Amino acid sequence: MAQHSPRELPEGDPFGAHTLPYGVFTTSDEPGRPRVGVRYGAYVLDAAAAAAAHGSAYAGLLDRPSLNPLMAAGRAVWQAVRSEIPAWLEGPYFHPLDEVTLHLPFEVADYVDFYASEYHATNAGRIFRPNGEALTPNWKHLPIGYHGRAGTVVLSGTDVVRPSGQRKAPADALPTFGPSQRLDLEAEVGFVVGTPSRTGTPVPLADFREHVFGVCLVNDWSARDIQGWEYVPLGPFLGKSFATSVSAWITPLDAFDHARTAPPERSHPLLPYLDDAGSEPGGIDLRLEVTINGETVSRPPFSAMYWTAAQQMAHMTVNGASLRTGDLYASGTVSGPEPDQLGCLLELTQGKGPWLADGDEVTITAWAPGPDGARIGLGEVTGRVLPPVG
Amino acid sequence: MAQHSPRELPEGDPFGAHTLPYGVFTTSDEPGRPRVGVRYGAYVLDAAAAAAAHGSAYAGLLDRPSLNPLMAAGRAVWQAVRSEIPAWLEGPYFHPLDEVTLHLPFEVADYVDFYASEYHATNAGRIFRPNGEALTPNWKHLPIGYHGRAGTVVLSGTDVVRPSGQRKAPADALPTFGPSQRLDLEAEVGFVVGTPSRTGTPVPLADFREHVFGVCLVNDWSARDIQGWEYVPLGPFLGKSFATSVSAWITPLDAFDHARTAPPERSHPLLPYLDDAGSEPGGIDLRLEVTINGETVSRPPFSAMYWTAAQQMAHMTVNGASLRTGDLYASGTVSGPEPDQLGCLLELTQGKGPWLADGDEVTITAWAPGPDGARIGLGEVTGRVLPPVG
Repeated sequence: MAQHSPRELPEGDPFGAHTLPYGVFTTSDEPGRPRVGVRYGAYVLDAAAAAAAHGSAYAGLLDRPSLNPLMAAGRAVWQAVRSEIPAWLEGPYFHPLDEVTLHLPFEVADYVDFYASEYHATNAGRIFRPNGEALTPNWKHLPIGYHGRAGTVVLSGTDVVRPSGQRKAPADALPTFGPSQRLDLEAEVGFVVGTPSRTGTPVPLADFREHVFGVCLVNDWSARDIQGWEYVPLGPFLGKSFATSVSAWITPLDAFDHARTAPPERSHPLLPYLDDAGSEPGGIDLRLEVTINGETVSRPPFSAMYWTAAQQMAHMTVNGASLRTGDLYASGTVSGPEPDQLGCLLELTQGKGPWLADGDEVTITAWAPGPDGARIGLGEVTGRVLPPVG
Repeated sequence: MAQHSPRELPEGDPFGAHTLPYGVFTTSDEPGRPRVGVRYGAYVLDAAAAAAAHGSAYAGLLDRPSLNPLMAAGRAVWQAVRSEIPAWLEGPYFHPLDEVTLHLPFEVADYVDFYASEYHATNAGRIFRPNGEALTPNWKHLPIGYHGRAGTVVLSGTDVVRPSGQRKAPADALPTFGPSQRLDLEAEVGFVVGTPSRTGTPVPLADFREHVFGVCLVNDWSARDIQGWEYVPLGPFLGKSFATSVSAWITPLDAFDHARTAPPERSHPLLPYLDDAGSEPGGIDLRLEVTINGETVSRPPFSAMYWTAAQQMAHMTVNGASLRTGDLYASGTVSGPEPDQLGCLLELTQGKGPWLADGDEVTITAWAPGPDGARIGLGEVTGRVLPPVG
């Protein structure tokens, strides 16, 4: 198995030497030993084996069933490990991707979901609150977010059973119970925390890179009918908590150095803890693509997001809340200004559907420009809708 | 140290033979060995040592740094361990409570906060939404809840630093940033999940006892000014996420068998998954007491809660979301109909304050009636407000 070597990486492959995302895998001959791998083209580099063979000081951090020990080790270690990988790529430590089993790459601590696209927030606001202002008065002053259910974050490829719940259309006298009739996807970008922070100590914008280990793709599945009935006044709960899918690969934040972009111009002054005017560009030029059953339905541009991941981290901790290794926070639905750049069916169909049908397979991919014309990839997040139980 | 024995339990002590709550403690001579203890009066029974000395099959579950292994073992084991404890109380395995260090008794998986008191929801709704209906249209149809931050759940006795954040009064043109000026407590009852459930399989009302290991007290500290500005449309976030305090002791659910009461009469028909008309009484006659700096400010009755913990569990999983060992869900603020039964300062002061001052110490205690006139106690949850940092 391990004799393969991907010498011939296809032109434009987003998983080349500038990407090197981390995941956790097992092989069929050692199903009980999940360990850290690095994706390279259509192969997985056995990072645990390569590190051990090269006498790396970090081999012990890689022969582990999740990325959490590596993530907790801090940025200096992340950089050191990443600098050793090119030498490991020369060796015989590869497995074809289709011959390994991938696992949830990290243990999720807290999961937070933001709402950072002005286009999405405006479009969704118009549909959910047709009689009010689309954007709430706070939207331009702080990155709105809420906590989601960490226990139902699942690996890409996991089937998602259509949830049941209460829903009530405005014209109905009483709520009814049954399978969601408005099942939606939400294309999002996730940020995974490595270095924890101390309770009572806010993380400033400038420390973003010290804490965020890497980036993944997220499908924040949403049952719009359940959500619409439940979410006032305390926010989304069962309309979201049945499943949140994440990609199997976490691409290190440093891989996106060539793709950093300035966020959209701010229309309102920002309080100092959110003011990134003098900081490195907070956006990332990630180009997402959403397919349903293989057909492209949208190409959302992450560069259009109003709030950046650094601002979200600064906001999330400004009250003294601590970060833990394994915290996942997602951007909120990525939508751009154009009709083919909307990151969920709610927007793509203007709230009218059609929605996801049983059997539909949703896949989100993304890449960003890298050095020398290279593409920097995020691992895909995919999932299929199963019919409701019972 | 271990020679003490609490032969003379004071009359009416809520931590007698009918209570026997679990916690995790260390002694000064073995600070590196947290293990499971059982509170008895003003003493801690070293359950790990007692179980080992008695040759209990469960000694290995008790010589652990958290309750999670015991909680994950399931109800049959909980009952078996509880049945062995009376024999252990005869032995020399006690430490005075004031000579041990208590620890967070379980590893928190997901934290959910409900909103189950009709009095609280009505009072809070009037204050937060003076121009709308106090109760939202969904309130009588489903137990409203939302996810909170598991990573900032702290042990009773932990100081709480006053959080800073954005707030904007309706009359202000722009939000300002600074320490919360409306820091509040919320007296709540928490339910701790032991037995996990399977993704995609809702937990019916009748299975409540199979999954809930025990009950604790919760102070869901709330910064009302931060919350008021941020919470529309996605719910409370930084107004709550800086700290949530839980008691050091988890009282087994079975200890409240004599205190089960019928919940208030339902004014609206319930969908079948929430209909508890034919079930065991879902309420618990817990009498809470809230003190600030030793002065009683409220005596909230838990029996007045509209939604029961069993209904909350059925609702939380009806969309297929799974439970994990260590999930904590709290009742929401416990408020009764009388002015001296309100569980937070927002209600006690009708939104006008005074609010918590730096240095204030908030303590919540509770007990329920047990057999033969005994009192069944919950461990206190206490915390002191520290001034803001910087």
